[in-house]
Amino acid sequence: MKNLAILGSTGSIGQSALAVVDAHPTRLRVATLAAGDNAALLAEQAKRYAPSLVGIASRNAAERFRHACGAPVPMIVEGPEGLVAAATHPSVDLVVCASSGTAGLEAVLAAIDAGKTVALANKEVLVMAGELVMDAARRRGVSVLPVDSEHNAIHQCLHGRDRRDIRRLILTASGGPFRDLTIDALTRVDAAAALRHPTWRMGRKITIDSATLMNKGLEVIEAHWLFGVSADQIDVVVHPQSIVHSMVELTDGSIIAQLGVTDMRLPIQYACSYPERWDTATLPRLDLTRAGQLEFHAPARDRFPCLDLAYRALRTAGTMPVVLNAANEIAVEAFLGGKLGFTGIPNVIQRAMDAHAPETIASLEVARRVDEWARKRASDAVEALELNV
Amino acid sequence: MKNLAILGSTGSIGQSALAVVDAHPTRLRVATLAAGDNAALLAEQAKRYAPSLVGIASRNAAERFRHACGAPVPMIVEGPEGLVAAATHPSVDLVVCASSGTAGLEAVLAAIDAGKTVALANKEVLVMAGELVMDAARRRGVSVLPVDSEHNAIHQCLHGRDRRDIRRLILTASGGPFRDLTIDALTRVDAAAALRHPTWRMGRKITIDSATLMNKGLEVIEAHWLFGVSADQIDVVVHPQSIVHSMVELTDGSIIAQLGVTDMRLPIQYACSYPERWDTATLPRLDLTRAGQLEFHAPARDRFPCLDLAYRALRTAGTMPVVLNAANEIAVEAFLGGKLGFTGIPNVIQRAMDAHAPETIASLEVARRVDEWARKRASDAVEALELNV
Repeated sequence: MKNLAILGSTGSIGQSALAVVDAHPTRLRVATLAAGDNAALLAEQAKRYAPSLVGIASRNAAERFRHACGAPVPMIVEGPEGLVAAATHPSVDLVVCASSGTAGLEAVLAAIDAGKTVALANKEVLVMAGELVMDAARRRGVSVLPVDSEHNAIHQCLHGRDRRDIRRLILTASGGPFRDLTIDALTRVDAAAALRHPTWRMGRKITIDSATLMNKGLEVIEAHWLFGVSADQIDVVVHPQSIVHSMVELTDGSIIAQLGVTDMRLPIQYACSYPERWDTATLPRLDLTRAGQLEFHAPARDRFPCLDLAYRALRTAGTMPVVLNAANEIAVEAFLGGKLGFTGIPNVIQRAMDAHAPETIASLEVARRVDEWARKRASDAVEALELNV
Repeated sequence: MKNLAILGSTGSIGQSALAVVDAHPTRLRVATLAAGDNAALLAEQAKRYAPSLVGIASRNAAERFRHACGAPVPMIVEGPEGLVAAATHPSVDLVVCASSGTAGLEAVLAAIDAGKTVALANKEVLVMAGELVMDAARRRGVSVLPVDSEHNAIHQCLHGRDRRDIRRLILTASGGPFRDLTIDALTRVDAAAALRHPTWRMGRKITIDSATLMNKGLEVIEAHWLFGVSADQIDVVVHPQSIVHSMVELTDGSIIAQLGVTDMRLPIQYACSYPERWDTATLPRLDLTRAGQLEFHAPARDRFPCLDLAYRALRTAGTMPVVLNAANEIAVEAFLGGKLGFTGIPNVIQRAMDAHAPETIASLEVARRVDEWARKRASDAVEALELNV
């Protein structure tokens, strides 16, 4: 029996994680839950899974949770400490970290220090502090298992293989809803159009990141940290059907790929069951004879410059990926709020990166400081672009 | 340094195996060679690779070999013993068995008895005597590594995984040149049309087997023996591009696939290097962005009944696969000679199978006797069909 902490339990990944628990009641148990503002859903989950501890982002949400939960109320930890408390609770074996943004980073570091296995579904953790996190995991002898379907696929492809046999990783990208638009058409797309993702149903931020290819850029940086390969050894191909979740080319030219239906329960279960595999007869199976044709294209780097900005940040290293990530969050927020055009997103990020003198990430504090600086710088860039319109 | 015996060195697979040796002169050495009738090419190979021993099928070919070789002539063993002598020579570590037909079977059993690793490129060995061969390999602690691109792909997909995690193997088939023809059109195709294979360049017999899907049927039987899975756990999908070489579906629904260019040097090298992988910078690499679309279809079992005949033989077990294989050889020969229509091939095989009372393969002699019986029975069926035309 593995005891899970689910950080971000009310989000899409968190709910999928609970569905995996439902499917394997003799193998998985919910030890702790942590969520942000959705007190009503968290209360439902607490009633159903009876966690030992619940972390809630704010005092206000905690009040609503107490009210909705009724007796017995589990132990509650409010504020950012809630995530850490849920991640490090003594009963926890495996931490599923699906808290979006940078909130999960401290919790992941605390979980690693406490010797917990981490199933990582939060991109920012490795983008902001990949070296800190992976160093800590190595020192503590803790596994960091990827939940993102692409990295999960690569983990599956690499299982049992010598890392020296890797020639390159090939991350697949759906290409987003605008992959065939001209530069000119891209300047005119709005948030509503960008939110219609062709194959995966996800949150708003990640859907825009998917449309700009920044999502893939962030995954390139994650892959570097997870699998210890250089930027030159990570390629991206656009694969609109999202059936091949990613691939590994080995030194002899052989390519190993992982394929499956687009359902997050599969990579989450893989991370929960690893190194075992559990039968999931209840989940839909991939029937390739009904899948239609599979296509693979080179990404249009000129029309979607976020991808190359991410490569640049990874190659520059140090705090530059922090700037990339923070500036992107501000730019996407501005785009969703109608303050910035679609092609303004990479523009804002590039301005912040150009203005940054990278330093080594010696501690979490450095990452936090640079993150704040980059948000301010990106906000300024958004305003400057607004005035120019 | 691995010392190779190459059985069938003058054939297509044998020549590819020598190309692999050329690419890795510090890792691979030719210890022995064996071939059939092509004395001139064998002599060239002997001059170049200086094997310790050469096996040649006939006295006549041996004479021609001596003449072509000039001094120094390596040790020569004539007749069927030539294959066995080449396979079991004390200097040999790994036997690449590419002798077509049943000739290789005795040599493979002898190699296993002598403790040699076997790289198997001869389908008939496992189709005729899978249980004998795999039992001997288990007892002797010897690995049988598949060279066929499909089984080689499955071996790569399964590496490092627990066999209990297999839900099913998915063998890909090009579908052959006639995959879109109607039954009516199939009755009228001739050998010349069948020999134009769309993706792989192979010998005449295997090209016809590819067009009838019998090649895939034989591979289903091989896969059963190589990977210890039942007929129900082996599926076939038609994939005309031959880029995905085969796949494995695991119990959690995840599919692992192996992809690559269609070049036999890759699976041969994999078998030679296993469990290592060697860099092959000189070989063409697969660029999926230039590969076009990948398609997958269910095989047309009604129009290509050889596939189901193979499943039937595997499920019946015992000597039935021997009958399938022998009758198929006779039928294909008759088709190539213009004595039998394309749709007559499964007809002849089915007649031989229907007439056979299967028995256990207790020894090689049983397999040989049934093989002879089935050839006779199939020849009779060809004649009967000829008279009916």
